Amino acid sequence: MDHRATPEEIQRVVDTISDMGYGAKPMPGRQRTAIGLVGNDGRVESARLAGLPGVRELIKVSQPYKQVSREWRDEDTLVDIGNGVVIGGREVVVIAGPCAVEGREQILDIAARVRDAGASALRGGAFKPRTSPYSFQGLGPKGLELLAEAREETGLAVVTEAVEPEGVALVAEYADVIQIGARNMQNYPLLKRAGRSGRPVLLKRGMSATITELLLAAEYLLSEGNPHVILCERGVRSFDTRTRNLLDLTAIPLVKSLTHLPVIADPSHGTGVRDKVTPMARAAVAVGADGLIIEVHPNPPEALSDGAQSLYPEQFERLIRQCGPIAEAIDRSLARLPETVGSAGHF
Amino acid sequence: MDHRATPEEIQRVVDTISDMGYGAKPMPGRQRTAIGLVGNDGRVESARLAGLPGVRELIKVSQPYKQVSREWRDEDTLVDIGNGVVIGGREVVVIAGPCAVEGREQILDIAARVRDAGASALRGGAFKPRTSPYSFQGLGPKGLELLAEAREETGLAVVTEAVEPEGVALVAEYADVIQIGARNMQNYPLLKRAGRSGRPVLLKRGMSATITELLLAAEYLLSEGNPHVILCERGVRSFDTRTRNLLDLTAIPLVKSLTHLPVIADPSHGTGVRDKVTPMARAAVAVGADGLIIEVHPNPPEALSDGAQSLYPEQFERLIRQCGPIAEAIDRSLARLPETVGSAGHF
Amino acid sequence: MDHRATPEEIQRVVDTISDMGYGAKPMPGRQRTAIGLVGNDGRVESARLAGLPGVRELIKVSQPYKQVSREWRDEDTLVDIGNGVVIGGREVVVIAGPCAVEGREQILDIAARVRDAGASALRGGAFKPRTSPYSFQGLGPKGLELLAEAREETGLAVVTEAVEPEGVALVAEYADVIQIGARNMQNYPLLKRAGRSGRPVLLKRGMSATITELLLAAEYLLSEGNPHVILCERGVRSFDTRTRNLLDLTAIPLVKSLTHLPVIADPSHGTGVRDKVTPMARAAVAVGADGLIIEVHPNPPEALSDGAQSLYPEQFERLIRQCGPIAEAIDRSLARLPETVGSAGHF
Amino acid sequence: MDHRATPEEIQRVVDTISDMGYGAKPMPGRQRTAIGLVGNDGRVESARLAGLPGVRELIKVSQPYKQVSREWRDEDTLVDIGNGVVIGGREVVVIAGPCAVEGREQILDIAARVRDAGASALRGGAFKPRTSPYSFQGLGPKGLELLAEAREETGLAVVTEAVEPEGVALVAEYADVIQIGARNMQNYPLLKRAGRSGRPVLLKRGMSATITELLLAAEYLLSEGNPHVILCERGVRSFDTRTRNLLDLTAIPLVKSLTHLPVIADPSHGTGVRDKVTPMARAAVAVGADGLIIEVHPNPPEALSDGAQSLYPEQFERLIRQCGPIAEAIDRSLARLPETVGSAGHF
Repeated sequence: MDHRATPEEIQRVVDTISDMGYGAKPMPGRQRTAIGLVGNDGRVESARLAGLPGVRELIKVSQPYKQVSREWRDEDTLVDIGNGVVIGGREVVVIAGPCAVEGREQILDIAARVRDAGASALRGGAFKPRTSPYSFQGLGPKGLELLAEAREETGLAVVTEAVEPEGVALVAEYADVIQIGARNMQNYPLLKRAGRSGRPVLLKRGMSATITELLLAAEYLLSEGNPHVILCERGVRSFDTRTRNLLDLTAIPLVKSLTHLPVIADPSHGTGVRDKVTPMARAAVAVGADGLIIEVHPNPPEALSDGAQSLYPEQFERLIRQCGPIAEAIDRSLARLPETVGSAGHF
Repeated sequence: MDHRATPEEIQRVVDTISDMGYGAKPMPGRQRTAIGLVGNDGRVESARLAGLPGVRELIKVSQPYKQVSREWRDEDTLVDIGNGVVIGGREVVVIAGPCAVEGREQILDIAARVRDAGASALRGGAFKPRTSPYSFQGLGPKGLELLAEAREETGLAVVTEAVEPEGVALVAEYADVIQIGARNMQNYPLLKRAGRSGRPVLLKRGMSATITELLLAAEYLLSEGNPHVILCERGVRSFDTRTRNLLDLTAIPLVKSLTHLPVIADPSHGTGVRDKVTPMARAAVAVGADGLIIEVHPNPPEALSDGAQSLYPEQFERLIRQCGPIAEAIDRSLARLPETVGSAGHF
Repeated sequence: MDHRATPEEIQRVVDTISDMGYGAKPMPGRQRTAIGLVGNDGRVESARLAGLPGVRELIKVSQPYKQVSREWRDEDTLVDIGNGVVIGGREVVVIAGPCAVEGREQILDIAARVRDAGASALRGGAFKPRTSPYSFQGLGPKGLELLAEAREETGLAVVTEAVEPEGVALVAEYADVIQIGARNMQNYPLLKRAGRSGRPVLLKRGMSATITELLLAAEYLLSEGNPHVILCERGVRSFDTRTRNLLDLTAIPLVKSLTHLPVIADPSHGTGVRDKVTPMARAAVAVGADGLIIEVHPNPPEALSDGAQSLYPEQFERLIRQCGPIAEAIDRSLARLPETVGSAGHF
Repeated sequence: MDHRATPEEIQRVVDTISDMGYGAKPMPGRQRTAIGLVGNDGRVESARLAGLPGVRELIKVSQPYKQVSREWRDEDTLVDIGNGVVIGGREVVVIAGPCAVEGREQILDIAARVRDAGASALRGGAFKPRTSPYSFQGLGPKGLELLAEAREETGLAVVTEAVEPEGVALVAEYADVIQIGARNMQNYPLLKRAGRSGRPVLLKRGMSATITELLLAAEYLLSEGNPHVILCERGVRSFDTRTRNLLDLTAIPLVKSLTHLPVIADPSHGTGVRDKVTPMARAAVAVGADGLIIEVHPNPPEALSDGAQSLYPEQFERLIRQCGPIAEAIDRSLARLPETVGSAGHF
């Protein structure tokens, strides 16, 4: 429907669809209401619907997901992460940082180092979903403040996770991109809240989620009016326990052929093994990922979480040096923050 | 620690552990604070700790999960679900009902039928986590009221799902048992809230959760002071798509050997195929499950969700008739509601 | 085609199918030649084919597997294993014995014990496919002789594995049932040879084989003219390494609804953990398995292979005592060898 | 042991190990006999063994696989495939061709085209293991002759599959490299025969084989005296059926860190989807694969097998053009056949 369509016009389309013997499913978004027509057997009289007042266009979608599909929107979505960097275009964007914010010195130190090496955004958890209730669960609001401080100092955009619906507003206040973790990919109340947050969302594929389920989870975000969604392949569960997960790189071109949303790779969780992160980062760039998210820690053996998969800063610098030529080999390049950014501040 | 231990006593134990060169991890519960000792290399001077004021007992736990383990508590936990029925004892308890509460007539009808057939508790979702944002998401609070009405009429205990932390209090007001669904097994804020709800919790195994992860999720509940936890095997994701999931019955004796908590089986989600539910229910009883949770609908082809796996009421009656002799073959029996229960009411 | 159909009659049917614009695929079997018609779009003129000389009947098969399907043959296949015992009928047949034949005393001892406890057939590998080239690979031909001696003494039928096409004839000389192991489920030259061996074949599901692949592997046996095939669910590979495999009991009713062949369960390999074998054997009987195959060893800790999953003889006796009432609860019973069998000999 | 060690010297080492209370496992190879010492608890008196006549060196191996491990041999193995091309060095070798040899024109045509595009070896099955007994099973010996003819004309080395032990000798007569398919990775009689064939072996990872199982399968080849083994990652079974398999690229650096053998990738089977083959081939090169094996067919829609994953010749040319710069980005290059090769002939 047109974004100026009145409730009456919307109702009239719904009624017309019902009259024609099909189901009508209004999908109210921020900008406009879409009306899904269910049970299309190919004999729908399109003209009758197209002529109704308030109707903008008729779109035929054959998938269970609608607004995320290439059928709905063909051109690539570009997600602006707030510091002049865009994910989904020709440039491959690198997000880097520790698993968790552990303290002021740690986060400022690593932010400066990953920025100097070539990252455009800083990752770091303030709220950590941990398998055991007795593990370190993050610094909470204090962590968010430290991330904002790191942004001030470096110009890096901040990517950090929200773990519950009630917490989305607070995270949105500090973060440039709200991360939804793999364990929460099907946490629908959380997705709905993130969809209404006004911030770009980085949605990680669940541990055993099919591609269809990932796209349907993204559909929750778009159906709440948030088109700024970045998908992330981070490995799926497999039968061989030598790696923490099995990074499914085929998913990247596959998802990109199905959706207009950008797709990045997380080789840190995807392998769980430090010395496999760099080769898999290269492979992710070669396969066409729009970005990378990499765990880097000033001192991995003392990390409070995910130490085994966190790179040393020197390893991260090497990773960037290796990924650059790979990006160029496929006519892309690694995104770089403008030199002038830094203490300029963000808000 | 003793439940009357003072903060000073607790601190002194922590300090003593640190002095001895180990890590001390206080785990405050409702009743008492446990203090985990990390890094035990077998040379801990137990006597020195046992003699401190406020110390109740020293327990050696070799697993990452503590309070759920058989090492922590050897005897089986019995969970009273509120209508005189107990899960975890000699009787096998059957929970049955529709996937979702769809309306007053539907839920009252099916409640009466499953009760007459032999169920002790009623399942039915008021809040439904659905893969697609365009699918029916449940009746919400109205659904809870209808479940309570069905309980009044039948004496069945009510088992229904909470899908977000903020919603736990409302669900706890109406439900006898709060269900945490498979998608939310690692939704830690939800687990914490459910752990403080004062209601028994039915925790379903996640789609690709290991046994250890299931037990650690339960540990979140116990560490909040809620010992009334029922675990549920409901099938894991597999490579063969002929069945919706792969019901892992070996998990039942396996989990029961590791934890004192009761374990039930969900052959409806575990197979996803109506005519495989009854044979797998029989198998679950034979393997030693403490209960079954079964989807039954007055008219499955018209169910708003999970129709393909919902039994017709007649099929459920047959299931009960077949499971009874299996229970007896292993010296158990199916739980039956006392005849007098019914309009008696619950609250 | 009729079993007396001449090559000319067969050719004429093939030509007629080609004339009609479809593909014709002759499937010569022992008894008769079937001619598959490929590309059936529902508009085949059946009458034209049915009237040709030599045509016995027209069968419509919608699956990739043909002769194993219920569409091809509706009634259950009964497989006679040579000592008066039949698999696939009302009786549940128990096959038991060590993983491998290790010596004369071992195999005669365990054969007598499993027979006394209630087994009808003896398992025991003479040729062992082992993951490592440095593991014990079986006694070879000497093992076959010892199995035959055990049959003489006990009346048990002998089930033992063939691991290569060239070895089938030798195994067929000694065995009552030729086992094809999970690793060889898709070893087609081996299947073809076993299909021509004249012996019943026990075909185990591969480690990650779908149901369709299992049925197509069985089709290789039937297409060579061997209808005496017993399928075996033995667990599939999963992500949780607590059990060696994940026993997929749902596969049993599922496979039985698709094929007329009998299906048995192997809870020893299916769990890999001794104390889970008995509960899963009970569950397999409850779900409707036509038999069980169980590893039992006189002294499991000293077994040359699979010791961790082998039962002690006393445990096997208990297993039989527990499975009997389960079988009766579903109107079946455990098969028992006639008392008079024993030294009577077999050949 | 030294390669000149006498049987008596070998026996004396075995006896000495036994005297010391450990197990001795002689592993006779082509060049020399290794003697594995089982049960090493770290207190073995090395000096006593090292001093015995005929002992070349003492190697400590902590893995179940021995001769394939980096501990056994640290430097990379280079496998010469017969036409001047070597796998395992700095050059990335491309093997290409149809799934199956279908006829003279088809194989000569495609051989010339893949050679001109940049392949160094020709793949093509003469014997095809097929899931259904009714599918095309290959041209057999005629297919081998056609492959040899294609080699004469193009200079490409020939890689083709052996499917049964008895067939190895014939395949070895025509092929430069004997392929062992995924379904046969644990077909030990076949592995043993291939290990004695005198030809290099391309060993594909099984559908759900762990890395350890893959290395143990290779150990079967090396333990028969064949060190010329190329490993191949070709995708593992997963829960999402959108792709035929899940190509596990992490396995490539992982396997290369554990073994000295070269590792190549098969993105054709690894994805099963034509337009995902090229991006995954790029990724495989980026991650460090020593080669690629790619299905190319003159006319994929009419291929007798694997049409959906076979590239058109033009797509293969593009793949080569894309992979070249990726190889250069990591300081490698694609192997090219010398111009002079061609009609020169091979035998």
